[in-house]
Amino acid sequence: MTDSAADLGYMRAALSLARRGLGRVAPNPAVGCIIVSQNQIVGRGWTQPGGRPHAETEALAQASIAARGSTVYVTLEPCSHHGQTGPCAEALVKAGVARCVVAMNDPDERVRGRGVKMLREAGIAVETGLLRHEAERVNAGYLLHRLHGRPLVTLKLATTLDGRIATHTGESQWITGNSARAFGHRLRATHDAILIGGRTALYDNPRLDCRLPGLETRSPLRVIMDGSLVLPLTHHLVANAGARAGNCSTLLFTREGHPKERVAAYRSAGVEVIELRPDQPGGLLPPDGVLEALAARGVTRVLCEGGGGLAASLVRAGLVDRLIWFRAARLLGDDGRAGLSALGIDSLKDSPRFRLDFLRCLGEDLLESYSKAT
Amino acid sequence: MTDSAADLGYMRAALSLARRGLGRVAPNPAVGCIIVSQNQIVGRGWTQPGGRPHAETEALAQASIAARGSTVYVTLEPCSHHGQTGPCAEALVKAGVARCVVAMNDPDERVRGRGVKMLREAGIAVETGLLRHEAERVNAGYLLHRLHGRPLVTLKLATTLDGRIATHTGESQWITGNSARAFGHRLRATHDAILIGGRTALYDNPRLDCRLPGLETRSPLRVIMDGSLVLPLTHHLVANAGARAGNCSTLLFTREGHPKERVAAYRSAGVEVIELRPDQPGGLLPPDGVLEALAARGVTRVLCEGGGGLAASLVRAGLVDRLIWFRAARLLGDDGRAGLSALGIDSLKDSPRFRLDFLRCLGEDLLESYSKAT
Repeated sequence: MTDSAADLGYMRAALSLARRGLGRVAPNPAVGCIIVSQNQIVGRGWTQPGGRPHAETEALAQASIAARGSTVYVTLEPCSHHGQTGPCAEALVKAGVARCVVAMNDPDERVRGRGVKMLREAGIAVETGLLRHEAERVNAGYLLHRLHGRPLVTLKLATTLDGRIATHTGESQWITGNSARAFGHRLRATHDAILIGGRTALYDNPRLDCRLPGLETRSPLRVIMDGSLVLPLTHHLVANAGARAGNCSTLLFTREGHPKERVAAYRSAGVEVIELRPDQPGGLLPPDGVLEALAARGVTRVLCEGGGGLAASLVRAGLVDRLIWFRAARLLGDDGRAGLSALGIDSLKDSPRFRLDFLRCLGEDLLESYSKAT
Repeated sequence: MTDSAADLGYMRAALSLARRGLGRVAPNPAVGCIIVSQNQIVGRGWTQPGGRPHAETEALAQASIAARGSTVYVTLEPCSHHGQTGPCAEALVKAGVARCVVAMNDPDERVRGRGVKMLREAGIAVETGLLRHEAERVNAGYLLHRLHGRPLVTLKLATTLDGRIATHTGESQWITGNSARAFGHRLRATHDAILIGGRTALYDNPRLDCRLPGLETRSPLRVIMDGSLVLPLTHHLVANAGARAGNCSTLLFTREGHPKERVAAYRSAGVEVIELRPDQPGGLLPPDGVLEALAARGVTRVLCEGGGGLAASLVRAGLVDRLIWFRAARLLGDDGRAGLSALGIDSLKDSPRFRLDFLRCLGEDLLESYSKAT
């Protein structure tokens, strides 16, 4: 009875819809839903910005009475709990769908199989696990957030062939070409927060927003790890912090113990400041503490854009889940600035390993995407 | 009358045959030849080890009387001069071929269009330039040797994602996996010489031979640039130098001025020693001088296998024509040893640029092949 080629195709389409929500729905999962009746797609939906309405709600509204007797493809188990709205599982039952194909169960403690159970008890044929791996990849941030209390961390690097991000004089604009930089902006739009170090903020003076036409409103939260408060109050990331509404504001992590007045001055400028105790007095900010605080704030996907010291501290702590590496076909040599500071690895067997996910040519540059090898 | 799709196919086949000679025919060009009669391949030939017989001679012998009225595809203009054997152009005329498609003219001053002229004067229809770019790529070493008096230089690197070739403790075996290392051995077989620095010879203790089954006899000349004579006489590359016959011996470049007895000791061990004047007293050996001396010895293709200092001196001098980069999906950080030492580049516009030729997955590693951007 199951047409698995058709099932795969519809679920892939649902996963594509799900990805539309990335960077806009945290702390909710980004879900996609396709409703098929008599071999026709009668409803398509994805999690809307802020997390509501859910994908199923959107797709059911589109399908209307055509949902009766239909097959529903959904990338995450429909919710079973009463939140701001009624549970999606209940809505699917009410709509009279005949079959439901679910890519993966929801690990959220309020759901965990109860959505699937609710559907089955109403006589709906439910299959789970189709393209589960892909669905887990789409919702990797949501899963880490729910299961480990931290966001997904993607480290972005733009280097020469020999791993350099700037000349020894500090010139870094631009190592890569237009296409790679545009792709970098698109990456920002699909993350909940951009994380950089204080010195990178100071020296590179990045705007940390998404400047692609049509995606200007999708700039994520700007997060700066600046233990020593090197970033001056006059820096635009501080001075303009209040001017950007909602999620697009600036969040500054620093060490405990700075003068109260100095910290207050950042807050007056509109910067949210979180003070953390370093691993050792005067030491670096603990990256796990930063990620925990971001998760508590609802962030599920973090894009780290350097510099080398911050990148190394995340790698050392085993907290880099993905690498997005833009590589320009040029050389700078050992006096160029490294994209990744010292890791203190004595033996090759201890060097962190990754797995290539995909590879793409972007103009004259390469884009390499890796996941942490497990 | 010209069937260009068929012409292309036959010339591609001829180029594949030509590549078989790489690493075995220097200082001669590696040529391929296909003879087609009535839509059938009646003869195939490629330059034989040492450079003789020529590709055309081989293909004509195979075709025998079927060569009469045939079309001949040859990747380099047939020779027109009397060397150890009669000119190929004359042999083609004698065999009665009707048409000859030539990928590129021979820049050798004894030929330079005279081969094509000889064919045309005998009434053979000659077309030149088909897949010329590919043919120039196959014979890049021969062309540089004839036109600029130096061999083609391919720099091979095997690094982590961040461009490191060893841990800070010096552990380098192995950054890359089996497939990449096997490909590295294949590379050796297609070059006339392997070039490394004295310190790399000492610390990494490489055998510098081709250890692929069936290709053991294709180990190239081993060349060591060791200005300071750090390589001890007991090192296997010195001690075993005499044991390896012919082309597979060890050639050592060093600075002028070492004690005569010390230099004589290397020579007694079977090492060929060439003394060069450094750019400045006690300075590095001039890479252009080394390449010139190699060219004078008939070397057309050099594979440089490091270390970082030698690689940087070649890059700085603009002498790296190709890069073969094996990249393992792991990280070592800025305390790892760099594959490319300092280049002294102040401004990004001065960083040497390359062009991606091809990309391949080798097990879990990437193989990236680049040519110098022109």
